[in-house]
Amino acid sequence: MEPSEQPDPDAAYRRGALDLLGILAYGALAAFDRLAEDARLAPTLADKVHMASMAAHQVSHFERVKARLAEFDVDVMAAMTPFHEPFNTFHDYTRPKDWPEGLVKAYVGDGIGADFYREVAAFVDAETRALVHEVLADEGHADFVVDRVRAAILTDPRLAGRLALWGRRLVGEALSQAQRVAADREALTSLLTGTVDRPGLDLAAVSRMFSRLIDNHTRRMAALGLQA
Amino acid sequence: MEPSEQPDPDAAYRRGALDLLGILAYGALAAFDRLAEDARLAPTLADKVHMASMAAHQVSHFERVKARLAEFDVDVMAAMTPFHEPFNTFHDYTRPKDWPEGLVKAYVGDGIGADFYREVAAFVDAETRALVHEVLADEGHADFVVDRVRAAILTDPRLAGRLALWGRRLVGEALSQAQRVAADREALTSLLTGTVDRPGLDLAAVSRMFSRLIDNHTRRMAALGLQA
Repeated sequence: MEPSEQPDPDAAYRRGALDLLGILAYGALAAFDRLAEDARLAPTLADKVHMASMAAHQVSHFERVKARLAEFDVDVMAAMTPFHEPFNTFHDYTRPKDWPEGLVKAYVGDGIGADFYREVAAFVDAETRALVHEVLADEGHADFVVDRVRAAILTDPRLAGRLALWGRRLVGEALSQAQRVAADREALTSLLTGTVDRPGLDLAAVSRMFSRLIDNHTRRMAALGLQA
Repeated sequence: MEPSEQPDPDAAYRRGALDLLGILAYGALAAFDRLAEDARLAPTLADKVHMASMAAHQVSHFERVKARLAEFDVDVMAAMTPFHEPFNTFHDYTRPKDWPEGLVKAYVGDGIGADFYREVAAFVDAETRALVHEVLADEGHADFVVDRVRAAILTDPRLAGRLALWGRRLVGEALSQAQRVAADREALTSLLTGTVDRPGLDLAAVSRMFSRLIDNHTRRMAALGLQA
């Protein structure tokens, strides 16, 4: 904020909401990339079609978020800029080396991200919130992943140990990038924690939020037959 | 055809039309793959978004063709099977090594393919024909490619020679795979050339068709500022 500006709770709120939309837009593009890469690893053409169609959905999510940002008179390219680096770093550090790792990343990694964005969305305007929920809706991908990962573990039981480690690594890397974003983007963080003029979550509520995120993560790992 | 079957012009026609749809479906998936890879080579995020959105369009084309095949009671996976190898071979032999080569391939390679499919579509039922034209519609991609390739050549004039060679190689490889498909898929070929019961193109008409294909190719190369 420029020193001459007066603190304006609406402006701060707006910056936080725009950050959330920027994250969703860049997250959708990054997910497109990754799903298209996973499609290439797919063992059957039917699996490839499924992944390609998931990737295409990400582009339509991107378009929806872009349209919403345009209603705020904000260019999607500008809104995404602060999030290139954390997302790219996350993806560079967590390159799936085969099809099951790609599936687990799509389900477990995107799952914890989506849960967190929904928590933040509780603090933005109703229209933006509805868009966030719509963009993050599952669209049957979870069932597909659970089915394929369980089948892969049945075929090769040793996979379970490697994928359980992989799941923990994904969460670790995701948290490390999330902390970086939280430190850099005060407006986004203050959506959750509130400001002098606008109450947010107190410490107990933040801790309950983390419990919810971890519970959901554990539930997803269990659905895959993996230990969290 | 089983030896006990009587030749049935409708069945032969139907097989040809299904082959055309199978080619379009697999072509769309292969194009998705390639555009997603091109997106990764894009020099700017805006270019990346454009390529990702083109890739997503290919998935919706695939879905449209799949739905039409279902109306014929044919599974898209089965319809695509004969075309895996020629498409995969074409793409393996023509891997773009940078962003301009990817753009030229998307415009020149897909262009000549699309022209040929439209020629074949003249011989199928009106509803299938309309679908083929819709799936092959340009959607503004040509303008994008022409703009980016011309800009790249302005920046590095030596590119023009390499890209002109590349364009010729693309056409050579495409024709070589097309001949293979023509030899293997009699029903498809006979859509064009006709059968005893159903007249098709005579030799002069086939030769005019090739002239049209080559004229359009030359026009596309010229639009890029390249010699065909």
